[in-house]
Amino acid sequence: MSDPTYTPPKVWSFDAENGGEFASINRPTAGPRFDKELPRGKHPFQLHSLATPNGVKVSIMFEELLAAGFSDAEYDAYPIRIGDGDQFGSGFVNINPNSKIPALIDTTTTPETRIFESGSILLYLADKFDAFIPVDHAGRTECLNWLFWQMGSAPFLGGGFGHFYKYAPEKYQYPIDRYTMEVKRQLDVLDKQLANNQYIAGDSYTIADIAIWSWYGQVALNRAYEAAEFLQVHEYKNVLRWANDIDQRPAVKRGVKVNRTWGEEEEQVPERHQAADLD
Amino acid sequence: MSDPTYTPPKVWSFDAENGGEFASINRPTAGPRFDKELPRGKHPFQLHSLATPNGVKVSIMFEELLAAGFSDAEYDAYPIRIGDGDQFGSGFVNINPNSKIPALIDTTTTPETRIFESGSILLYLADKFDAFIPVDHAGRTECLNWLFWQMGSAPFLGGGFGHFYKYAPEKYQYPIDRYTMEVKRQLDVLDKQLANNQYIAGDSYTIADIAIWSWYGQVALNRAYEAAEFLQVHEYKNVLRWANDIDQRPAVKRGVKVNRTWGEEEEQVPERHQAADLD
Repeated sequence: MSDPTYTPPKVWSFDAENGGEFASINRPTAGPRFDKELPRGKHPFQLHSLATPNGVKVSIMFEELLAAGFSDAEYDAYPIRIGDGDQFGSGFVNINPNSKIPALIDTTTTPETRIFESGSILLYLADKFDAFIPVDHAGRTECLNWLFWQMGSAPFLGGGFGHFYKYAPEKYQYPIDRYTMEVKRQLDVLDKQLANNQYIAGDSYTIADIAIWSWYGQVALNRAYEAAEFLQVHEYKNVLRWANDIDQRPAVKRGVKVNRTWGEEEEQVPERHQAADLD
Repeated sequence: MSDPTYTPPKVWSFDAENGGEFASINRPTAGPRFDKELPRGKHPFQLHSLATPNGVKVSIMFEELLAAGFSDAEYDAYPIRIGDGDQFGSGFVNINPNSKIPALIDTTTTPETRIFESGSILLYLADKFDAFIPVDHAGRTECLNWLFWQMGSAPFLGGGFGHFYKYAPEKYQYPIDRYTMEVKRQLDVLDKQLANNQYIAGDSYTIADIAIWSWYGQVALNRAYEAAEFLQVHEYKNVLRWANDIDQRPAVKRGVKVNRTWGEEEEQVPERHQAADLD
Protein backbone atom coordinates (compact mmCIF):
# COMPACT_ATOMS: atom_id res chain seq x y z
CA MET A 1 0.00 0.00 0.00
CA SER A 2 1.05 3.61 -0.50
CA ASP A 3 1.71 5.69 2.61
CA PRO A 4 -1.76 6.78 3.73
CA THR A 5 -0.47 9.93 5.42
CA TYR A 6 1.27 12.64 3.44
CA THR A 7 1.90 16.34 3.03
CA PRO A 8 -0.89 17.74 0.85
CA PRO A 9 0.31 19.66 -2.22
CA LYS A 10 -0.48 23.36 -2.56
CA VAL A 11 -2.92 22.56 -5.38
CA TRP A 12 -4.91 19.33 -5.48
CA SER A 13 -4.85 17.36 -8.74
CA PHE A 14 -7.10 14.58 -9.91
CA ASP A 15 -5.82 10.99 -9.93
CA ALA A 16 -8.35 8.60 -11.45
CA GLU A 17 -6.71 5.68 -9.61
CA ASN A 18 -7.82 6.89 -6.19
CA GLY A 19 -11.30 6.21 -4.96
CA GLY A 20 -12.10 2.56 -4.30
CA GLU A 21 -15.08 0.56 -5.52
CA PHE A 22 -17.62 2.58 -7.54
CA ALA A 23 -15.12 5.43 -7.84
CA SER A 24 -13.75 4.77 -11.32
CA ILE A 25 -16.61 6.78 -12.74
CA ASN A 26 -16.30 9.76 -10.38
CA ARG A 27 -14.75 13.02 -11.55
CA PRO A 28 -14.17 16.45 -9.97
CA THR A 29 -16.40 18.04 -12.63
CA ALA A 30 -20.15 18.29 -13.26
CA GLY A 31 -22.37 18.38 -16.32
CA PRO A 32 -23.36 15.91 -19.05
CA ARG A 33 -20.70 13.62 -20.50
CA PHE A 34 -22.73 12.34 -23.45
CA ASP A 35 -26.06 12.93 -25.22
CA LYS A 36 -28.86 10.60 -24.20
CA GLU A 37 -32.56 11.26 -24.02
CA LEU A 38 -34.53 9.72 -21.19
CA PRO A 39 -37.21 7.13 -21.99
CA ARG A 40 -40.78 8.20 -21.30
CA GLY A 41 -43.91 6.30 -20.28
CA LYS A 42 -47.59 7.22 -20.15
CA HIS A 43 -48.11 7.94 -16.44
CA PRO A 44 -48.26 11.34 -14.71
CA PHE A 45 -44.92 10.80 -12.96
CA GLN A 46 -41.66 9.73 -14.58
CA LEU A 47 -39.13 8.42 -12.04
CA HIS A 48 -35.47 7.85 -12.91
CA SER A 49 -33.83 6.06 -10.03
CA LEU A 50 -32.16 2.98 -8.56
CA ALA A 51 -33.10 0.83 -5.54
CA THR A 52 -30.46 2.33 -3.24
CA PRO A 53 -31.60 3.82 0.11
CA ASN A 54 -32.14 7.23 -1.50
CA GLY A 55 -33.95 5.63 -4.42
CA VAL A 56 -36.37 3.47 -2.48
CA LYS A 57 -37.58 6.46 -0.48
CA VAL A 58 -39.42 7.64 -3.58
CA SER A 59 -40.67 4.29 -4.86
CA ILE A 60 -42.00 3.48 -1.36
CA MET A 61 -43.78 6.86 -1.35
CA PHE A 62 -45.43 6.15 -4.70
CA GLU A 63 -46.50 2.67 -3.58
CA GLU A 64 -47.89 4.14 -0.33
CA LEU A 65 -49.84 6.76 -2.29
CA LEU A 66 -51.26 4.12 -4.63
CA ALA A 67 -52.11 1.83 -1.69
CA ALA A 68 -53.92 4.75 -0.05
CA GLY A 69 -56.08 5.14 -3.15
CA PHE A 70 -54.42 8.06 -4.91
CA SER A 71 -54.75 6.73 -8.44
CA ASP A 72 -53.27 9.98 -9.80
CA ALA A 73 -49.93 8.88 -8.32
CA GLU A 74 -49.31 6.37 -11.11
CA TYR A 75 -45.71 6.35 -12.26
CA ASP A 76 -43.22 4.89 -14.68
CA ALA A 77 -39.86 4.03 -13.12
CA TYR A 78 -36.70 3.64 -15.19
CA PRO A 79 -33.32 2.52 -13.87
CA ILE A 80 -30.30 4.78 -13.77
CA ARG A 81 -27.40 2.31 -13.66
CA ILE A 82 -24.92 4.44 -11.78
CA GLY A 83 -22.10 1.92 -12.23
CA ASP A 84 -22.49 2.40 -15.99
CA GLY A 85 -22.62 6.20 -15.72
CA ASP A 86 -26.25 6.68 -16.80
CA GLN A 87 -26.42 9.67 -14.43
CA PHE A 88 -24.09 11.62 -16.71
CA GLY A 89 -26.36 11.46 -19.77
CA SER A 90 -27.71 14.79 -20.99
CA GLY A 91 -31.35 13.88 -20.38
CA PHE A 92 -30.74 12.95 -16.77
CA VAL A 93 -28.54 15.98 -16.07
CA ASN A 94 -31.38 18.14 -17.37
CA ILE A 95 -33.61 16.90 -14.56
CA ASN A 96 -30.85 16.69 -11.96
CA PRO A 97 -27.74 18.80 -12.56
CA ASN A 98 -26.18 17.03 -9.56
CA SER A 99 -26.15 13.65 -11.43
CA LYS A 100 -27.53 11.67 -8.47
CA ILE A 101 -30.58 9.46 -8.21
CA PRO A 102 -33.51 9.78 -7.65
CA ALA A 103 -34.93 12.41 -10.02
CA LEU A 104 -38.57 12.89 -10.99
CA ILE A 105 -40.64 14.63 -13.65
CA ASP A 106 -44.20 15.72 -12.88
CA THR A 107 -45.85 15.80 -16.31
CA THR A 108 -49.16 17.15 -14.95
CA THR A 109 -47.95 20.73 -14.56
CA THR A 110 -47.42 23.33 -17.28
CA PRO A 111 -44.54 23.45 -17.87
CA GLU A 112 -43.45 20.07 -16.55
CA THR A 113 -41.66 20.19 -13.20
CA ARG A 114 -38.31 18.61 -12.39
CA ILE A 115 -37.77 17.50 -8.81
CA PHE A 116 -34.42 16.25 -7.49
CA GLU A 117 -33.00 15.29 -4.09
CA SER A 118 -34.97 12.54 -2.38
CA GLY A 119 -36.11 14.80 0.46
CA SER A 120 -37.39 17.39 -1.98
CA ILE A 121 -39.30 14.72 -3.92
CA LEU A 122 -40.91 13.32 -0.73
CA LEU A 123 -42.05 16.77 0.36
CA TYR A 124 -43.29 17.60 -3.16
CA LEU A 125 -45.43 14.47 -3.32
CA ALA A 126 -46.67 14.81 0.27
CA ASP A 127 -47.83 18.36 -0.38
CA LYS A 128 -49.27 17.51 -3.80
CA PHE A 129 -51.47 14.74 -2.39
CA ASP A 130 -51.86 16.03 1.18
CA ALA A 131 -50.67 12.65 2.39
CA PHE A 132 -48.05 11.24 4.74
CA ILE A 133 -47.43 14.67 6.25
CA PRO A 134 -49.38 15.99 9.27
CA VAL A 135 -51.90 18.72 8.51
CA ASP A 136 -51.49 20.51 11.84
CA HIS A 137 -48.73 23.12 12.20
CA ALA A 138 -46.90 21.39 15.05
CA GLY A 139 -46.99 17.99 13.40
CA ARG A 140 -45.88 19.29 10.03
CA THR A 141 -42.97 21.14 11.62
CA GLU A 142 -41.78 18.11 13.56
CA CYS A 143 -42.07 15.95 10.45
CA LEU A 144 -39.92 18.39 8.47
CA ASN A 145 -37.39 18.66 11.32
CA TRP A 146 -36.79 14.91 11.00
CA LEU A 147 -36.90 14.88 7.21
CA PHE A 148 -34.12 17.47 7.15
CA TRP A 149 -32.32 15.56 9.93
CA GLN A 150 -32.21 12.54 7.66
CA MET A 151 -30.83 14.53 4.75
CA GLY A 152 -28.01 16.03 6.80
CA SER A 153 -27.22 12.87 8.78
CA ALA A 154 -27.22 10.03 6.24
CA PRO A 155 -24.09 11.29 4.41
CA PHE A 156 -22.21 10.25 7.57
CA LEU A 157 -23.85 6.81 7.33
CA GLY A 158 -23.59 6.18 3.59
CA GLY A 159 -20.78 8.36 2.26
CA GLY A 160 -18.87 8.07 5.54
CA PHE A 161 -19.39 4.81 7.43
CA GLY A 162 -20.55 2.66 4.52
CA HIS A 163 -17.76 3.84 2.26
CA PHE A 164 -14.91 3.36 4.72
CA TYR A 165 -16.25 0.19 6.36
CA LYS A 166 -17.20 -1.62 3.17
CA TYR A 167 -16.11 0.03 -0.08
CA ALA A 168 -12.76 1.81 0.41
CA PRO A 169 -9.77 -0.11 -1.00
CA GLU A 170 -8.21 -0.52 2.47
CA LYS A 171 -9.50 -0.46 6.03
CA TYR A 172 -8.37 2.84 7.52
CA GLN A 173 -8.92 2.93 11.26
CA TYR A 174 -9.29 6.65 11.80
CA PRO A 175 -12.19 7.24 9.37
CA ILE A 176 -13.90 4.01 10.42
CA ASP A 177 -13.75 5.06 14.08
CA ARG A 178 -14.90 8.57 13.25
CA TYR A 179 -17.94 7.49 11.26
CA THR A 180 -18.86 4.52 13.45
CA MET A 181 -19.07 6.77 16.50
CA GLU A 182 -21.33 9.18 14.62
CA VAL A 183 -23.58 6.45 13.21
CA LYS A 184 -24.03 4.92 16.66
CA ARG A 185 -24.84 8.36 18.04
CA GLN A 186 -27.42 8.85 15.27
CA LEU A 187 -28.98 5.44 15.97
CA ASP A 188 -29.20 6.42 19.65
CA VAL A 189 -30.89 9.72 18.71
CA LEU A 190 -33.51 7.71 16.84
CA ASP A 191 -33.81 5.11 19.59
CA LYS A 192 -34.58 7.77 22.19
CA GLN A 193 -37.09 9.48 19.87
CA LEU A 194 -38.82 6.16 19.18
CA ALA A 195 -38.95 5.28 22.88
CA ASN A 196 -41.73 7.83 23.28
CA ASN A 197 -43.24 7.87 19.80
CA GLN A 198 -44.71 5.14 17.64
CA TYR A 199 -43.35 6.86 14.55
CA ILE A 200 -40.51 9.32 14.10
CA ALA A 201 -42.58 12.48 14.22
CA GLY A 202 -45.36 11.26 16.54
CA ASP A 203 -48.45 9.11 16.16
CA SER A 204 -48.64 8.95 12.39
CA TYR A 205 -46.51 7.39 9.67
CA THR A 206 -45.03 10.17 7.54
CA ILE A 207 -42.42 10.98 4.93
CA ALA A 208 -39.95 11.30 7.83
CA ASP A 209 -40.40 7.58 8.51
CA ILE A 210 -40.02 6.72 4.83
CA ALA A 211 -36.79 8.74 4.57
CA ILE A 212 -35.24 7.47 7.81
CA TRP A 213 -36.33 3.84 7.43
CA SER A 214 -34.74 3.66 3.98
CA TRP A 215 -31.33 4.31 5.56
CA TYR A 216 -31.36 3.62 9.29
CA GLY A 217 -34.16 1.06 9.26
CA GLN A 218 -32.44 -0.98 6.60
CA VAL A 219 -29.11 -0.78 8.47
CA ALA A 220 -30.85 -1.95 11.66
CA LEU A 221 -32.35 -4.84 9.69
CA ASN A 222 -28.84 -5.72 8.46
CA ARG A 223 -29.55 -5.03 4.81
CA ALA A 224 -26.61 -2.68 4.28
CA TYR A 225 -22.85 -2.98 4.75
CA GLU A 226 -23.09 -6.29 6.73
CA ALA A 227 -22.39 -4.18 9.80
CA ALA A 228 -25.11 -5.24 12.26
CA GLU A 229 -22.67 -6.95 14.62
CA PHE A 230 -19.97 -4.27 14.27
CA LEU A 231 -22.55 -1.58 15.12
CA GLN A 232 -24.36 -3.77 17.68
CA VAL A 233 -27.70 -2.76 16.22
CA HIS A 234 -29.57 -5.03 18.65
CA GLU A 235 -28.91 -2.36 21.31
CA TYR A 236 -31.33 -0.03 19.56
CA LYS A 237 -34.52 -1.84 20.54
CA ASN A 238 -36.92 0.96 19.69
CA VAL A 239 -35.35 1.41 16.28
CA LEU A 240 -35.73 -2.33 15.64
CA ARG A 241 -39.37 -2.36 16.74
CA TRP A 242 -40.11 0.55 14.39
CA ALA A 243 -37.99 -0.84 11.54
CA ASN A 244 -39.76 -4.20 11.66
CA ASP A 245 -43.15 -2.52 11.87
CA ILE A 246 -42.53 -0.48 8.72
CA ASP A 247 -40.94 -3.45 6.98
CA GLN A 248 -44.29 -5.25 7.18
CA ARG A 249 -46.12 -2.59 5.18
CA PRO A 250 -47.14 -3.96 1.76
CA ALA A 251 -46.18 -0.71 0.03
CA VAL A 252 -42.70 -0.91 1.54
CA LYS A 253 -42.27 -4.50 0.38
CA ARG A 254 -43.21 -3.32 -3.11
CA GLY A 255 -41.25 -0.09 -3.09
CA VAL A 256 -37.89 -1.66 -2.28
CA LYS A 257 -38.12 -3.79 -5.45
CA VAL A 258 -38.52 -0.87 -7.86
CA ASN A 259 -35.47 -0.18 -10.06
CA ARG A 260 -33.60 -3.04 -8.45
CA THR A 261 -30.93 -4.28 -10.85
CA TRP A 262 -29.04 -6.73 -8.60
CA GLY A 263 -29.65 -9.80 -6.44
CA GLU A 264 -31.58 -12.92 -7.44
CA GLU A 265 -33.15 -12.63 -10.88
CA GLU A 266 -36.70 -12.83 -9.48
CA GLU A 267 -35.90 -9.90 -7.15
CA GLN A 268 -34.94 -7.63 -10.02
CA VAL A 269 -37.50 -5.13 -11.29
CA PRO A 270 -35.45 -2.71 -13.37
CA GLU A 271 -38.51 -0.96 -14.78
CA ARG A 272 -41.96 -0.44 -13.25
CA HIS A 273 -44.91 0.63 -15.41
CA GLN A 274 -47.89 -1.02 -13.74
CA ALA A 275 -48.80 -2.65 -10.44
CA ALA A 276 -48.41 -6.13 -11.89
CA ASP A 277 -44.69 -5.51 -12.48
CA LEU A 278 -44.18 -5.87 -8.73
CA ASP A 279 -46.55 -8.78 -8.04
CA MET B 1 1.66 7.42 14.55
CA SER B 2 -0.32 4.24 14.91
CA ASP B 3 -0.85 2.09 11.83
CA PRO B 4 -3.71 3.81 9.97
CA THR B 5 -4.86 0.60 8.30
CA TYR B 6 -6.05 -2.37 10.36
CA THR B 7 -8.42 -5.30 10.57
CA PRO B 8 -11.67 -4.04 12.09
CA PRO B 9 -12.81 -5.97 15.17
CA LYS B 10 -16.10 -7.87 15.08
CA VAL B 11 -17.62 -5.34 17.46
CA TRP B 12 -16.58 -1.68 17.48
CA SER B 13 -15.72 -0.14 20.82
CA PHE B 14 -15.38 3.48 21.80
CA ASP B 15 -11.92 4.98 22.33
CA ALA B 16 -12.10 8.56 23.55
CA GLU B 17 -8.56 9.22 22.27
CA ASN B 18 -9.56 8.92 18.61
CA GLY B 19 -11.14 11.84 16.83
CA GLY B 20 -8.89 14.87 16.34
CA GLU B 21 -9.64 18.48 17.14
CA PHE B 22 -13.14 19.12 18.57
CA ALA B 23 -13.61 15.37 19.07
CA SER B 24 -12.85 15.12 22.77
CA ILE B 25 -16.46 15.96 23.48
CA ASN B 26 -18.00 13.51 21.00
CA ARG B 27 -19.57 10.26 22.15
CA PRO B 28 -21.41 7.39 20.43
CA THR B 29 -24.52 8.15 22.52
CA ALA B 30 -27.28 10.76 22.44
CA GLY B 31 -29.35 12.55 25.06
CA PRO B 32 -28.69 15.17 27.75
CA ARG B 33 -25.50 14.89 29.84
CA PHE B 34 -26.45 17.50 32.46
CA ASP B 35 -29.39 19.65 33.55
CA LYS B 36 -29.36 23.18 32.24
CA GLU B 37 -32.27 25.42 31.34
CA LEU B 38 -31.94 27.67 28.33
CA PRO B 39 -31.95 31.44 28.84
CA ARG B 40 -34.96 33.28 27.46
CA GLY B 41 -35.47 36.79 26.04
CA LYS B 42 -38.55 38.81 25.20
CA HIS B 43 -38.76 38.41 21.41
CA PRO B 44 -41.04 36.09 19.42
CA PHE B 45 -38.13 33.87 18.32
CA GLN B 46 -35.48 32.35 20.57
CA LEU B 47 -32.41 31.20 18.65
CA HIS B 48 -29.73 28.99 20.19
CA SER B 49 -26.82 28.78 17.79
CA LEU B 50 -23.21 29.56 16.91
CA ALA B 51 -21.72 31.46 13.94
CA THR B 52 -20.68 28.33 12.03
CA PRO B 53 -21.91 27.89 8.42
CA ASN B 54 -25.05 26.10 9.64
CA GLY B 55 -25.59 28.72 12.32
CA VAL B 56 -25.26 31.81 10.16
CA LYS B 57 -27.89 30.50 7.74
CA VAL B 58 -30.52 31.28 10.35
CA SER B 59 -29.13 34.57 11.65
CA ILE B 60 -28.78 35.81 8.05
CA MET B 61 -32.43 34.82 7.46
CA PHE B 62 -33.60 36.78 10.51
CA GLU B 63 -31.57 39.83 9.48
CA GLU B 64 -32.98 39.60 5.94
CA LEU B 65 -36.54 39.39 7.30
CA LEU B 66 -35.96 42.40 9.56
CA ALA B 67 -34.31 44.34 6.71
CA ALA B 68 -37.36 43.56 4.56
CA GLY B 69 -39.62 45.11 7.19
CA PHE B 70 -40.98 42.04 8.97
CA SER B 71 -40.84 43.46 12.48
CA ASP B 72 -42.48 40.28 13.82
CA ALA B 73 -39.22 38.48 13.05
CA GLU B 74 -37.46 39.95 16.10
CA TYR B 75 -35.27 37.42 17.84
CA ASP B 76 -33.00 36.78 20.78
CA ALA B 77 -29.87 34.78 19.91
CA TYR B 78 -27.86 32.92 22.55
CA PRO B 79 -24.58 31.11 21.94
CA ILE B 80 -24.21 27.36 22.19
CA ARG B 81 -20.49 26.93 22.80
CA ILE B 82 -20.06 23.52 21.23
CA GLY B 83 -16.45 23.21 22.37
CA ASP B 84 -17.71 23.46 25.96
CA GLY B 85 -20.54 20.96 25.38
CA ASP B 86 -23.47 23.37 25.74
CA GLN B 87 -25.33 21.28 23.15
CA PHE B 88 -25.64 18.42 25.65
CA GLY B 89 -27.56 20.44 28.26
CA SER B 90 -31.11 19.24 28.94
CA GLY B 91 -32.74 22.47 27.78
CA PHE B 92 -31.01 22.38 24.42
CA VAL B 93 -31.64 18.67 23.90
CA ASN B 94 -35.33 19.37 24.48
CA ILE B 95 -35.39 21.62 21.43
CA ASN B 96 -32.95 19.54 19.39
CA PRO B 97 -32.55 15.89 20.38
CA ASN B 98 -29.69 15.72 17.85
CA SER B 99 -27.54 18.14 19.93
CA LYS B 100 -26.48 20.26 16.97
CA ILE B 101 -26.82 23.97 16.33
CA PRO B 102 -28.91 25.83 15.23
CA ALA B 103 -32.18 25.28 17.10
CA LEU B 104 -35.10 27.66 17.36
CA ILE B 105 -38.21 28.21 19.47
CA ASP B 106 -41.23 30.00 17.98
CA THR B 107 -42.98 31.42 21.06
CA THR B 108 -45.90 32.81 19.04
CA THR B 109 -47.65 29.46 18.59
CA THR B 110 -49.67 27.53 21.16
CA PRO B 111 -47.97 25.41 22.25
CA GLU B 112 -44.55 26.80 21.38
CA THR B 113 -42.86 25.14 18.41
CA ARG B 114 -39.35 23.72 18.33
CA ILE B 115 -37.55 23.78 15.00
CA PHE B 116 -34.19 22.11 14.39
CA GLU B 117 -31.94 21.46 11.40
CA SER B 118 -30.93 24.62 9.58
CA GLY B 119 -32.84 23.68 6.43
CA SER B 120 -36.02 23.06 8.38
CA ILE B 121 -35.66 26.42 10.14
CA LEU B 122 -35.14 28.28 6.85
CA LEU B 123 -38.22 26.68 5.30
CA TYR B 124 -40.27 27.30 8.46
CA LEU B 125 -39.43 31.02 8.50
CA ALA B 126 -39.85 31.40 4.73
CA ASP B 127 -43.33 29.88 4.89
CA LYS B 128 -44.28 31.78 8.05
CA PHE B 129 -43.43 35.16 6.51
CA ASP B 130 -43.99 34.29 2.83
CA ALA B 131 -40.55 35.62 2.11
CA PHE B 132 -37.37 34.49 0.37
CA ILE B 133 -39.19 31.59 -1.27
CA PRO B 134 -40.90 31.88 -4.67
CA VAL B 135 -44.70 31.93 -4.60
CA ASP B 136 -45.15 30.13 -7.92
CA HIS B 137 -45.15 26.33 -7.98
CA ALA B 138 -42.18 25.94 -10.33
CA GLY B 139 -40.06 28.46 -8.45
CA ARG B 140 -40.87 27.01 -5.05
CA THR B 141 -40.02 23.51 -6.24
CA GLU B 142 -36.67 24.56 -7.71
CA CYS B 143 -35.84 26.49 -4.52
CA LEU B 144 -36.56 23.40 -2.40
CA ASN B 145 -34.58 21.16 -4.77
CA TRP B 146 -31.50 23.28 -4.05
CA LEU B 147 -32.23 23.68 -0.34
CA PHE B 148 -32.28 19.90 0.01
CA TRP B 149 -29.21 19.68 -2.25
CA GLN B 150 -27.33 21.82 0.23
CA MET B 151 -28.40 19.66 3.18
CA GLY B 152 -27.26 16.45 1.55
CA SER B 153 -24.08 17.86 -0.01
CA ALA B 154 -22.47 19.99 2.71
CA PRO B 155 -21.62 17.00 4.96
CA PHE B 156 -19.09 16.09 2.28
CA LEU B 157 -17.68 19.64 2.49
CA GLY B 158 -17.72 20.16 6.26
CA GLY B 159 -17.69 16.74 7.91
CA GLY B 160 -15.64 15.30 5.04
CA PHE B 161 -13.27 17.75 3.34
CA GLY B 162 -13.00 20.26 6.18
CA HIS B 163 -12.40 17.60 8.78
CA PHE B 164 -9.75 15.66 6.90
CA TYR B 165 -8.01 18.67 5.31
CA LYS B 166 -7.89 20.83 8.42
CA TYR B 167 -8.95 19.16 11.66
CA ALA B 168 -7.98 15.49 11.66
CA PRO B 169 -4.85 14.71 13.73
CA GLU B 170 -2.90 13.57 10.64
CA LYS B 171 -3.17 14.20 6.91
CA TYR B 172 -4.56 11.01 5.38
CA GLN B 173 -4.32 11.07 1.60
CA TYR B 174 -7.17 8.76 0.72
CA PRO B 175 -9.97 10.68 2.52
CA ILE B 176 -8.54 14.05 1.44
CA ASP B 177 -8.54 12.93 -2.20
CA ARG B 178 -12.02 11.46 -1.85
CA TYR B 179 -13.60 14.57 -0.37
CA THR B 180 -11.64 17.08 -2.45
CA MET B 181 -12.89 15.46 -5.65
CA GLU B 182 -16.47 15.63 -4.41
CA VAL B 183 -16.23 19.23 -3.21
CA LYS B 184 -14.77 20.34 -6.54
CA ARG B 185 -17.58 18.48 -8.31
CA GLN B 186 -20.14 20.25 -6.11
CA LEU B 187 -18.54 23.64 -6.79
CA ASP B 188 -18.75 22.86 -10.52
CA VAL B 189 -22.45 21.92 -10.16
CA LEU B 190 -23.03 25.35 -8.63
CA ASP B 191 -20.84 27.12 -11.18
CA LYS B 192 -22.83 25.67 -14.07
CA GLN B 193 -26.15 26.51 -12.38
CA LEU B 194 -24.99 30.09 -11.75
CA ALA B 195 -23.77 30.49 -15.34
CA ASN B 196 -27.40 30.77 -16.43
CA ASN B 197 -29.07 32.09 -13.28
CA GLN B 198 -28.42 35.19 -11.21
CA TYR B 199 -29.32 33.29 -8.07
CA ILE B 200 -29.32 29.58 -7.30
CA ALA B 201 -32.99 28.93 -8.05
CA GLY B 202 -33.51 31.58 -10.71
CA ASP B 203 -34.04 35.34 -10.71
CA SER B 204 -34.72 35.90 -7.05
CA TYR B 205 -32.66 35.61 -3.87
CA THR B 206 -34.10 32.79 -1.74
CA ILE B 207 -33.41 30.54 1.22
CA ALA B 208 -31.50 28.29 -1.21
CA ASP B 209 -28.97 31.10 -1.68
CA ILE B 210 -28.74 31.69 2.06
CA ALA B 211 -28.14 27.99 2.74
CA ILE B 212 -25.62 27.47 -0.06
CA TRP B 213 -23.75 30.77 0.41
CA SER B 214 -23.17 29.98 4.08
CA TRP B 215 -21.13 26.92 3.10
CA TYR B 216 -19.97 27.13 -0.52
CA GLY B 217 -19.98 30.92 -0.77
CA GLN B 218 -17.81 31.26 2.30
CA VAL B 219 -15.43 28.55 1.04
CA ALA B 220 -15.17 30.36 -2.31
CA LEU B 221 -14.38 33.59 -0.42
CA ASN B 222 -11.62 31.72 1.48
CA ARG B 223 -13.26 32.05 4.88
CA ALA B 224 -13.13 28.35 5.75
CA TYR B 225 -10.35 25.77 5.96
CA GLU B 226 -7.72 28.03 4.24
CA ALA B 227 -8.28 25.85 1.20
CA ALA B 228 -8.87 28.36 -1.61
CA GLU B 229 -5.59 27.57 -3.36
CA PHE B 230 -5.82 23.81 -2.76
CA LEU B 231 -9.33 23.79 -4.26
CA GLN B 232 -8.48 26.40 -6.92
CA VAL B 233 -11.67 28.27 -6.16
CA HIS B 234 -10.82 31.00 -8.69
CA GLU B 235 -11.84 28.49 -11.39
CA TYR B 236 -15.48 28.81 -10.30
CA LYS B 237 -16.06 32.30 -11.68
CA ASN B 238 -19.85 32.20 -11.50
CA VAL B 239 -19.76 31.01 -7.90
CA LEU B 240 -17.39 33.87 -7.04
CA ARG B 241 -19.58 36.46 -8.79
CA TRP B 242 -22.60 35.22 -6.85
CA ALA B 243 -20.71 34.83 -3.54
CA ASN B 244 -19.39 38.39 -3.72
CA ASP B 245 -22.83 39.72 -4.66
CA ILE B 246 -24.46 38.12 -1.62
CA ASP B 247 -21.55 39.09 0.60
CA GLN B 248 -22.42 42.76 -0.05
CA ARG B 249 -25.92 42.44 1.37
CA PRO B 250 -26.20 44.39 4.64
CA ALA B 251 -28.24 41.59 6.26
CA VAL B 252 -25.53 39.07 5.41
CA LYS B 253 -22.83 41.30 6.91
CA ARG B 254 -24.94 41.46 10.08
CA GLY B 255 -26.00 37.82 10.17
CA VAL B 256 -22.49 36.39 10.08
CA LYS B 257 -21.64 38.23 13.32
CA VAL B 258 -24.47 36.74 15.39
CA ASN B 259 -23.36 34.21 18.04
CA ARG B 260 -19.75 34.69 17.02
CA THR B 261 -17.50 33.76 19.93
CA TRP B 262 -14.07 33.88 18.26
CA GLY B 263 -11.84 36.24 16.29
CA GLU B 264 -11.02 39.84 17.18
CA GLU B 265 -12.87 41.05 20.25
CA GLU B 266 -14.83 43.67 18.27
CA GLU B 267 -16.02 40.93 15.88
CA GLN B 268 -17.55 38.88 18.68
CA VAL B 269 -21.30 39.18 19.27
CA PRO B 270 -22.08 36.18 21.50
CA GLU B 271 -25.66 37.32 22.17
CA ARG B 272 -28.02 39.36 20.01
CA HIS B 273 -31.12 40.96 21.53
CA GLN B 274 -31.58 44.14 19.50
CA ALA B 275 -30.43 45.66 16.23
CA ALA B 276 -27.88 47.85 18.00
CA ASP B 277 -25.98 44.77 19.18
CA LEU B 278 -24.73 44.34 15.61
CA ASP B 279 -24.03 47.99 14.74
